[in-house]
Amino acid sequence: MRIALSQINSHLGDFETNSKKILEQIQSAKDRHCDLVVFPECALMGYHPVDLLEQPYVVEAQLKALKKIETSIPDGITALVGIIAINPNKVGKPFLNSAILISKNKPSKLFSKQLLPTYDVFDEGRHIEPGETAKNFFKFKGQNVLVTICEDIWAWPQRGGHRYQTYGKNPLTQIPKSKVDLVLNLSASPYIPKKQKERQLVVKQTATHFNAPMVYVNMVGAQDELIYDGGSFAVDSKGKILAQACHFEEDLAILDLEKNEGSKKPLVTHEMESIRQAAVLGLKDFVSKSGFEKVHLGLSGGIDSALVACLAVDALGPQNVKAFLLPGPYTSPLSNQLAQKLCENLGIESHSLSINTGFEVLAEELNEKLGPLEFGLTHENLQARIRGNFLMAISNLKGSLLLGTSNKSELAVGYSTLYGDLCAGLLPIGDLLKTQVFELAKHYNSEHELIPLEIITRPPTAELRENQKDEDSLPPYDQLDPVVYKIVEKVKTPKSDLEKRIYNMMMKSEFKRWQAAPILKLSSHAFGRGRRLPITGAYIYP
Amino acid sequence: MRIALSQINSHLGDFETNSKKILEQIQSAKDRHCDLVVFPECALMGYHPVDLLEQPYVVEAQLKALKKIETSIPDGITALVGIIAINPNKVGKPFLNSAILISKNKPSKLFSKQLLPTYDVFDEGRHIEPGETAKNFFKFKGQNVLVTICEDIWAWPQRGGHRYQTYGKNPLTQIPKSKVDLVLNLSASPYIPKKQKERQLVVKQTATHFNAPMVYVNMVGAQDELIYDGGSFAVDSKGKILAQACHFEEDLAILDLEKNEGSKKPLVTHEMESIRQAAVLGLKDFVSKSGFEKVHLGLSGGIDSALVACLAVDALGPQNVKAFLLPGPYTSPLSNQLAQKLCENLGIESHSLSINTGFEVLAEELNEKLGPLEFGLTHENLQARIRGNFLMAISNLKGSLLLGTSNKSELAVGYSTLYGDLCAGLLPIGDLLKTQVFELAKHYNSEHELIPLEIITRPPTAELRENQKDEDSLPPYDQLDPVVYKIVEKVKTPKSDLEKRIYNMMMKSEFKRWQAAPILKLSSHAFGRGRRLPITGAYIYP
Repeated sequence: MRIALSQINSHLGDFETNSKKILEQIQSAKDRHCDLVVFPECALMGYHPVDLLEQPYVVEAQLKALKKIETSIPDGITALVGIIAINPNKVGKPFLNSAILISKNKPSKLFSKQLLPTYDVFDEGRHIEPGETAKNFFKFKGQNVLVTICEDIWAWPQRGGHRYQTYGKNPLTQIPKSKVDLVLNLSASPYIPKKQKERQLVVKQTATHFNAPMVYVNMVGAQDELIYDGGSFAVDSKGKILAQACHFEEDLAILDLEKNEGSKKPLVTHEMESIRQAAVLGLKDFVSKSGFEKVHLGLSGGIDSALVACLAVDALGPQNVKAFLLPGPYTSPLSNQLAQKLCENLGIESHSLSINTGFEVLAEELNEKLGPLEFGLTHENLQARIRGNFLMAISNLKGSLLLGTSNKSELAVGYSTLYGDLCAGLLPIGDLLKTQVFELAKHYNSEHELIPLEIITRPPTAELRENQKDEDSLPPYDQLDPVVYKIVEKVKTPKSDLEKRIYNMMMKSEFKRWQAAPILKLSSHAFGRGRRLPITGAYIYP
Repeated sequence: MRIALSQINSHLGDFETNSKKILEQIQSAKDRHCDLVVFPECALMGYHPVDLLEQPYVVEAQLKALKKIETSIPDGITALVGIIAINPNKVGKPFLNSAILISKNKPSKLFSKQLLPTYDVFDEGRHIEPGETAKNFFKFKGQNVLVTICEDIWAWPQRGGHRYQTYGKNPLTQIPKSKVDLVLNLSASPYIPKKQKERQLVVKQTATHFNAPMVYVNMVGAQDELIYDGGSFAVDSKGKILAQACHFEEDLAILDLEKNEGSKKPLVTHEMESIRQAAVLGLKDFVSKSGFEKVHLGLSGGIDSALVACLAVDALGPQNVKAFLLPGPYTSPLSNQLAQKLCENLGIESHSLSINTGFEVLAEELNEKLGPLEFGLTHENLQARIRGNFLMAISNLKGSLLLGTSNKSELAVGYSTLYGDLCAGLLPIGDLLKTQVFELAKHYNSEHELIPLEIITRPPTAELRENQKDEDSLPPYDQLDPVVYKIVEKVKTPKSDLEKRIYNMMMKSEFKRWQAAPILKLSSHAFGRGRRLPITGAYIYP
């Protein structure tokens, strides 16, 4: 039996694109003499639809596209495609997260997911009714094939799902071991550094449990905040990898079960390089899937905007990235020089707009009507907001998407101006701590000095007042970042005074994050839709 | 047996305030010779905590406050208090949504919620493990008392939960009818117009099913987007109302079961008046619970900002509301006059800041560096954003919360400027359609002309270009609003060309709503956290 692992990039809700892609991959798999081609979870719908499912005609439109695949599938090949199905029972949630087995002139067969993640970024409990893994069998070339969907294989003790979900029942241990000749898994598993190792562990555990080979097909591509990194693979009954698809790109890997071998692509193992590729994919897909071609950003001469510019150029090419220098009364000449030098290095167009006169005029109007005012936070924020006005005006003028440059450390403690530097269509590095921003910038410079060195070595500053440094308002980043990591990713109780101070800063700035643009998820717990905290009534330490 | 229905306003995560309030109410109930006092769902924690529960020390702190209630409760009275409990089992979600029965020197007893809403604004499936209603009994004064929590009584056919959740099992029909002498329900049920009627129906259905009296205690107060309207009540075994607490305020209603009578307050039955009181409560609690005293807003001379000003004055008093007129190049003299007149009628302070010079300067900088530019959308948005700059500067200067004036119709079709008129700490009328805005404004004028009549009768305009009217860009509101209602609240498939046009406008403006401030929920389906749609990949009609 030859199996194709079809690692596609689905576009949520775009059924024409998705069904065309699926039919093309089926044909490719057939051309390569495969008997079966396996697609990711929700391959036809795209993941994750959340409340798009509440519009009943969306699922109807998907099922219409499915009909077309069913009638167009060529002879001699069988496809297993992730879809959203309608729950045939009148009770419970209206949909099923399913895989459908399709072949020419045969009735299709449906298998549904049992374990529904409802934590972090996942909301499957909102619309999906659980299936029953023990029923998910089909006979193929004399083999008993078990179909599982994503979470269904993650209930092994020690790695049972998420930290806030320990599954009572492992659907796999309720199946007689001898009944299984081959296990398939369809996934839409978002990128987290080191996640591939965990996937290898659960797949190995499943394969060895059943003493059967296993195929794991993951989605690739990005949708809003989530980046699917692909990395689909197949193992033998001992857990040894037989076939391996690449990371971060569409692929069609082949497994030959008789020969016990398959096609193999290298994985991205360097962590910073994997973060870079994830962010680039996330940025590229966000821009193109929301109908944009071009992006722009404000370049301050600091490290955050420099890094976002590098990622944008990687994702979209220098011709689609424009930089804007927005000098104000406290911008040092060095900042402009460094920003300018970076644009030259990246080969991107840049323009400079001054906020000086605008700032003077608006501050004077405030002073005259509400003053006299001393220079303070109001004036700092006003500068950031005038920059926001210019950058959004450029969006309007050029039909270009504005990239924000906030990082996770700033977002955590609210060191950012709402409607100022938080203006953005997307926050590509909003899930990278400042120390990771430095690391990734250095990674960019590992071969030659792409980012002018002084951008990396100068002390971080917002340049919104005389001689301002980030450390005037914040703990140094090498103290701040481990605490943010501990509180957000590890969800540990703050103990020391420093930890409590940072925790309280986090809670008090929840209102800014509520209104933040989508944040590309690059860690195990990002700010954004996967973290839902109240504004009124956060628990504050005394 | 005398029972007190303690309808309190809990402050999420503020355990000192909540436990003090609970002990005071226990004492009041005792003073009024009650045997039992029943509190709302999550009375001690506050509702709804969502991911605040992920911080384990938050539940610990709540349990510490609970200990204090257990040791301080006076003799001779028993209290049933809604709390978040720790799931004693090692599997499943870590918490239970529970009621705890407390009396002096007796071990407390725990009862847990079985049906966990995970739809719309509710996320209970994220952290809560279901309990078992059939086990939720205690013996009190010789009576078998059944404890239910909120959703547990909503699984009757025909009104089973939410439109996206039909419960397979009704936990109540699995209990022998004869086993029940009295039913208690602890709720945190958010306001929706006409919701009280539905509550009366399910409570009557439950009481008559068991042929037993029933007590329903609802939360009052607001938290972020949700407004709890109270309206707690008790019925006899036929469903006749014996006791009734008020709407929108804390209360302690008394039921005397032997005498078959109780205290009764009138309910708010006029729909516009109930919407007004709900919005006022939502606004007041959002402001105070997030630590503010004062609010301000931009007054345009249009109906939306006029209505928000009225609500703010009702919620906080005229001394805590400041209005800012922000005339620009296209503001008519009439707009300023009407805004001024409204401030006089409301007795609020007003200031005027001109955006003219700021607009000229910023537009000229854009023109010089990126132009020559013709007047267009860029200039319209720029005016709105300079207004946003001023209003946020005032937040910084005065420590006052900015109220936004966007309504649901505008939010639906994206007729608003991101970082411009969308600047806000809260959107108090973001869940009212424009036609409801008119109705509520007229309701304000029902006794005397509080809102200058011309504000209500003039055609809506954003005044961002010469002779602009909303109807230049949008369908007339009397056509737009029924379609928005149909698509958002009724989730119906768009059929006509007009419906498809509006649906597509809605989908394409998802990115603006992603970044919108919290919206007070005043309908069965609001924009905000209860509606989770993707930005990349919304399904668009061809």
